[in-house]
Amino acid sequence: MSSPDSPDQIRWIAHELVVLPGFRNAYVQIIMTRGRPPIGSRDIRLCKNRFQAFSMPYMWVAPPEVQARGMSLHTSKRVRVPPQSVDPLVKHYHWLDFQMGLFEAYDVGAETVILQDLNGYVTEGPGFNIFAEIDGRLVTPQQGVLDGMTRRTTFELCRDLGIEVVEGKYTPEQLRSANEVFLTSTAGGIIPVTRVDNCIIADGTPGTKTVCLHTEYWKRRAAGWHAEPVIYRQAIKGVEK
Amino acid sequence: MSSPDSPDQIRWIAHELVVLPGFRNAYVQIIMTRGRPPIGSRDIRLCKNRFQAFSMPYMWVAPPEVQARGMSLHTSKRVRVPPQSVDPLVKHYHWLDFQMGLFEAYDVGAETVILQDLNGYVTEGPGFNIFAEIDGRLVTPQQGVLDGMTRRTTFELCRDLGIEVVEGKYTPEQLRSANEVFLTSTAGGIIPVTRVDNCIIADGTPGTKTVCLHTEYWKRRAAGWHAEPVIYRQAIKGVEK
Repeated sequence: MSSPDSPDQIRWIAHELVVLPGFRNAYVQIIMTRGRPPIGSRDIRLCKNRFQAFSMPYMWVAPPEVQARGMSLHTSKRVRVPPQSVDPLVKHYHWLDFQMGLFEAYDVGAETVILQDLNGYVTEGPGFNIFAEIDGRLVTPQQGVLDGMTRRTTFELCRDLGIEVVEGKYTPEQLRSANEVFLTSTAGGIIPVTRVDNCIIADGTPGTKTVCLHTEYWKRRAAGWHAEPVIYRQAIKGVEK
Repeated sequence: MSSPDSPDQIRWIAHELVVLPGFRNAYVQIIMTRGRPPIGSRDIRLCKNRFQAFSMPYMWVAPPEVQARGMSLHTSKRVRVPPQSVDPLVKHYHWLDFQMGLFEAYDVGAETVILQDLNGYVTEGPGFNIFAEIDGRLVTPQQGVLDGMTRRTTFELCRDLGIEVVEGKYTPEQLRSANEVFLTSTAGGIIPVTRVDNCIIADGTPGTKTVCLHTEYWKRRAAGWHAEPVIYRQAIKGVEK
């Protein structure tokens, strides 16, 4: 897809989306859409690609009170759309697999879901990557998942904090007996998981490394880490709310 | 999903979509959408399901002049989203696999695309099923595909015309050396294919069974087969265009 807006324009739009509503704590999303072909045609080469962006008060995958106790996770037998079908490195909302998995999760009283790959290994959930402490080190699935921004940030934090972390693979069964589990997402940072299926993880409270990473993440974020300052304009008289 | 409109209401809406514009040859589509959850939530149980429908002049997957010579088909190595991820019997537009496959097809000069399954067998294309004459009988993929209306109609026609047809499986290689190939879709009926990848099918013109089925299909459709008559109202004076 080709964007009608340049990277510089997109940067400006993202800033204006925070400045104009006066948000001090915002969630900004930028999206490219294929657009649609002329009516009666299915030739997607004729689509006019569009750029869209929106901002809203910061959105949490899980509210802070749920994060404090840790989320409950359902491991679905449903298979994440495999790389042979759609490249998982492209961020998109082609989420029918996740959505059906979420219904399964809700049906069994869990708050969110993780899908498996064709070989039965854990992959990712709707909008997040997963990390688990297995045999003394943090492991996150290596293949068939989005290379999420907060996943990368977690690797960076682990390096700085001297926490061992590797890409690897594990089954839902191994996940259920992990010492710690957390999710990563730009819509929530580092999110503790304290229940997987019917298994309580460790003592049922967020794990030591999880809390350490979570605290460091927000401490750094508050200090402007991986951030770009927004320049708020003075309100224009008469437009001021 | 639950529809806000009953089946009787949907039937009425479908008819009105033809009556009101005065279409004599229309394409009507009815769609259920999940709707969206409240802003800031990803809980899809909170979505308000919606019913949508539209009509337009009859849309062809391939225009009649292309059908007359037969379409050219690209067999992609891309895998159709497998049943383990999303039920192929549910008609939907979760089509990122098809869309990427279409770009491949256009890049190699083909008009449309067919995807394979995880075992390398032919599945279906964007909005159509496929039939091929292999070893003297028509074969259509058995699994991992939509049980399309026109696919069913083709079975009915074959039975009436004494043409042997079975569900089975075949590879792209077998498809390239088939005696006849055609696609089935409500947006086009029975559509001949005369080229698969770089292979001309038989003598390069639509096959005998294909033409027979195509002719019978439209003959019956014109006679009201599998149809429900639309009652056109007299135009209201002053509203008449």
